[in-house]
Amino acid sequence: MRFDILTVVPDLLDSPLNHSILKRARENGIAEIHVHDIRNWSTDRHRKVDDYPFGGDAGMVMQLQPVYDAIATLRSQRDYDEIIYTSPDGERFTQKMANTLSLKKNILVLCGHYKGIDHRVREHLVTREISIGDYVLTGGELAACVLCDAVIRLLPGAMGDETSALTDSFQDNLLAPPVYTRPAEFNGWRVPEVLLSGNPALIDEWQEQQAYERTRRLRPELLQE
Amino acid sequence: MRFDILTVVPDLLDSPLNHSILKRARENGIAEIHVHDIRNWSTDRHRKVDDYPFGGDAGMVMQLQPVYDAIATLRSQRDYDEIIYTSPDGERFTQKMANTLSLKKNILVLCGHYKGIDHRVREHLVTREISIGDYVLTGGELAACVLCDAVIRLLPGAMGDETSALTDSFQDNLLAPPVYTRPAEFNGWRVPEVLLSGNPALIDEWQEQQAYERTRRLRPELLQE
Repeated sequence: MRFDILTVVPDLLDSPLNHSILKRARENGIAEIHVHDIRNWSTDRHRKVDDYPFGGDAGMVMQLQPVYDAIATLRSQRDYDEIIYTSPDGERFTQKMANTLSLKKNILVLCGHYKGIDHRVREHLVTREISIGDYVLTGGELAACVLCDAVIRLLPGAMGDETSALTDSFQDNLLAPPVYTRPAEFNGWRVPEVLLSGNPALIDEWQEQQAYERTRRLRPELLQE
Repeated sequence: MRFDILTVVPDLLDSPLNHSILKRARENGIAEIHVHDIRNWSTDRHRKVDDYPFGGDAGMVMQLQPVYDAIATLRSQRDYDEIIYTSPDGERFTQKMANTLSLKKNILVLCGHYKGIDHRVREHLVTREISIGDYVLTGGELAACVLCDAVIRLLPGAMGDETSALTDSFQDNLLAPPVYTRPAEFNGWRVPEVLLSGNPALIDEWQEQQAYERTRRLRPELLQE
């Protein structure tokens, strides 16, 4: 699977894409991530990619031309399953969407920055607008990292045999049950006795009941889906 | 305002915290962000901070003791308004929550990693559990970056005079209206004529109507709040 990310601050993505599971997935050939600086497609001699908005509002707007040319270049090299623009008013990103995207081959992610992007990009060039949540960030770069991380960790081999995404929260519309590790007692706080029982059937039952109870209490709407 | 972040992969946070608005806010003394490696509090000679879960499940669990000692050290140095654990089953992070947190003085963010953290940390040490969305990430590090970014950009002076958070999506329960910049025509695509009219009253009216119409179409539930 391949991600191409278009951004005006490519260095911002450096460390999240080069540590932990994303690093290993890239090293093991499970996923490729290519970060491209939109300024490379600027026709301005100062490599400018933003300009004042029509209508006289506060903030700068990302220009259409560099983004248009960047997407044209990349599309001439391969077909993209999706050209995603990350924006707080996009479709809400969920674990289900991560599962779906993990089956794609080539995904292009366009990161907004400044006050926003010329709306003609959104109308004519992107295939999907995705929001990682109801809050505003400085740019779409962190959203792009979140997309890559949530999707790539689902790819076969990305997490190693000992860990499985199947027991993660949301995979079955349930929150994950609590986890505990040694020591069994610390500062007077003991782990639940059932986990020390060595009885797999009892432990399974307790975990299922905890997952259900936590979901009912914290996120009851997940049980309606 | 000060953020302290506890993590087992401190380098992962490097680039997001040192570019764009977060970089400038730190340089200008508007916000401090201190990243601490939980391994510094490990009592293991290999600086181990995870162990197998009780109950025999897949994945490793972050241990209680290093986190307990890290939080104790930091709390002995200052009072924290919140000790936040980032987790997909936490309270949903929103722009309103970002506004509230931006009024605090000291915030401690604990990043989960591996399969999760010993649940006694969540029961006894954290004051608030926050989720940036309904999806699972490799760790809480990207979530911590998202929190810092969404909150710190709201601090007075962080964004500079020319940009204002007040016209962002969600600040008035409306999505932002579309933005456009030069050229007025590109590839046959023209910006809406009203934006070229030079009539501020007409432009304001158009933007309000667009914000309302986009919200009604894309996120109608925001209008009920």
